[in-house]
Amino acid sequence: MQLLRLGEPGAERPYVRADGGGLHDLSPLTTDIDGTFLADDGIARTRAALAAGELPAADGTGLRTGPPIAQPGKVVCIGLNYRRHAEETGGAIPEEPVVFMKAPDVVVGPNDPILLPRGSTHTDWEVELGVVIGRTARYLDGPEAALDHVAGYAVSNDVSEREYQLHRGGQWDKGKSCENFNPLGPWLVPADEVGDPQVLGLRLSVNGARKQDSSTADMIFTVAYCVYYLSQFMVLRPGDLINTGTPEGVALGQPRPRPYLREGDVVELEIDRLGTQRQRVEQG
Amino acid sequence: MQLLRLGEPGAERPYVRADGGGLHDLSPLTTDIDGTFLADDGIARTRAALAAGELPAADGTGLRTGPPIAQPGKVVCIGLNYRRHAEETGGAIPEEPVVFMKAPDVVVGPNDPILLPRGSTHTDWEVELGVVIGRTARYLDGPEAALDHVAGYAVSNDVSEREYQLHRGGQWDKGKSCENFNPLGPWLVPADEVGDPQVLGLRLSVNGARKQDSSTADMIFTVAYCVYYLSQFMVLRPGDLINTGTPEGVALGQPRPRPYLREGDVVELEIDRLGTQRQRVEQG
Repeated sequence: MQLLRLGEPGAERPYVRADGGGLHDLSPLTTDIDGTFLADDGIARTRAALAAGELPAADGTGLRTGPPIAQPGKVVCIGLNYRRHAEETGGAIPEEPVVFMKAPDVVVGPNDPILLPRGSTHTDWEVELGVVIGRTARYLDGPEAALDHVAGYAVSNDVSEREYQLHRGGQWDKGKSCENFNPLGPWLVPADEVGDPQVLGLRLSVNGARKQDSSTADMIFTVAYCVYYLSQFMVLRPGDLINTGTPEGVALGQPRPRPYLREGDVVELEIDRLGTQRQRVEQG
Repeated sequence: MQLLRLGEPGAERPYVRADGGGLHDLSPLTTDIDGTFLADDGIARTRAALAAGELPAADGTGLRTGPPIAQPGKVVCIGLNYRRHAEETGGAIPEEPVVFMKAPDVVVGPNDPILLPRGSTHTDWEVELGVVIGRTARYLDGPEAALDHVAGYAVSNDVSEREYQLHRGGQWDKGKSCENFNPLGPWLVPADEVGDPQVLGLRLSVNGARKQDSSTADMIFTVAYCVYYLSQFMVLRPGDLINTGTPEGVALGQPRPRPYLREGDVVELEIDRLGTQRQRVEQG
């Protein structure tokens, strides 16, 4: 089962696709796929309504795919969370998760353009497993209970401007929240249908050439550990998004001259069971 | 004129107080003081409705004061933006603004408790001038036009856990987004009634002892420059909050043992023309 949102930016409507089946309108159940819906057993209710034939068939032809959740309350990111990526950036393996934020309003649809910030010459890609929170997590006792607080997963591109992030006097956030810098989707897949989040292949290519090709098995801190860990520092609320880090193969990790994104490039991402994204790079 | 929101958390309703006058219900004009309201000339319409006697008198007795704006789309913070604060922390004067983020859901009312994170021993205060965006700002041409994009100002406490911020392996954000870490208010005062934002005295005391006592004249980067600067890195949208940095006098800047906040402490903040806050420190 895949939850998704179709329509123009800011006017998306909720849909669901049954496994191997057709598209159904989810609006009889909810006006949006947001924290309220997820906290209110929305996924279980969707499954039941689908099984009971209560959701009318829909035709999504020609509709834009939006992000599969409404604008998150917050977007929390884990940095340097894949062993080989930590190595390629020249950093040490973190002793505990590195945490930074993206502005929630940079979450866009999976096929919306990546916008190069004006003057940017170091815009980079990062395929990541996106984790959507389904139940409030506050001071969890340990990683064991953490996955019970996850509603589902989605492909996430943590687009990053490396000069802004690393060489403009301060914190990484400066290079993480430019317009359109977080394509998400196409779908939210329920956590119980994904199963173990630590065995998912994830891949990214630019203009057809494979750049990233790894597995969530290479994560230093598991999804469960990250959710538990973050809950000690902040309240995770339904609808929040966690980007869990990217594997090796970003432009920053390549020999110079590094192949940062340029206008007209095409970036494609995929994660096992979570679908594909395709973004064209445009001038912002 | 002061815009404010009264009621329990998540159920606040909008009000306005005329200068030297009584409280009026703002709900005939809007359901909330949010980005949509601000972008739609809400402040001018409020002023006109007040003048025309169209807003019924209200009694706020016994009602909690919430933050004066609905949950922001993002909270962007400028670090080390007062000369004497940059000096007290031992850092160099920044060459360009240092930027970091707070999670939007940590914005709470001006008198709500500061919650000590569990295990925290380094929770600190920061009185700041909060800037609320009223018009979308994207790649502004210069600081000259920046203040036209500001709806108004409010007192903001950028509560910070210094160990989490500085010594837990990563970015400042880890110590900036704990529960309740951004008391805001009591009021949003329209920008045109505040006038020059660079001449405002701002003060903070703990248990009655003055800790911070400065003026926005000590800012390294003015409000106008910060809005212009941020607009090069992200889209600022109506309802977004910018915390513009804190002056000297935080616990981090004191000789050891540093007087970090403890359960039962009372923190009071004020900024000229923007009102006062009072928070009791409680265990989270």
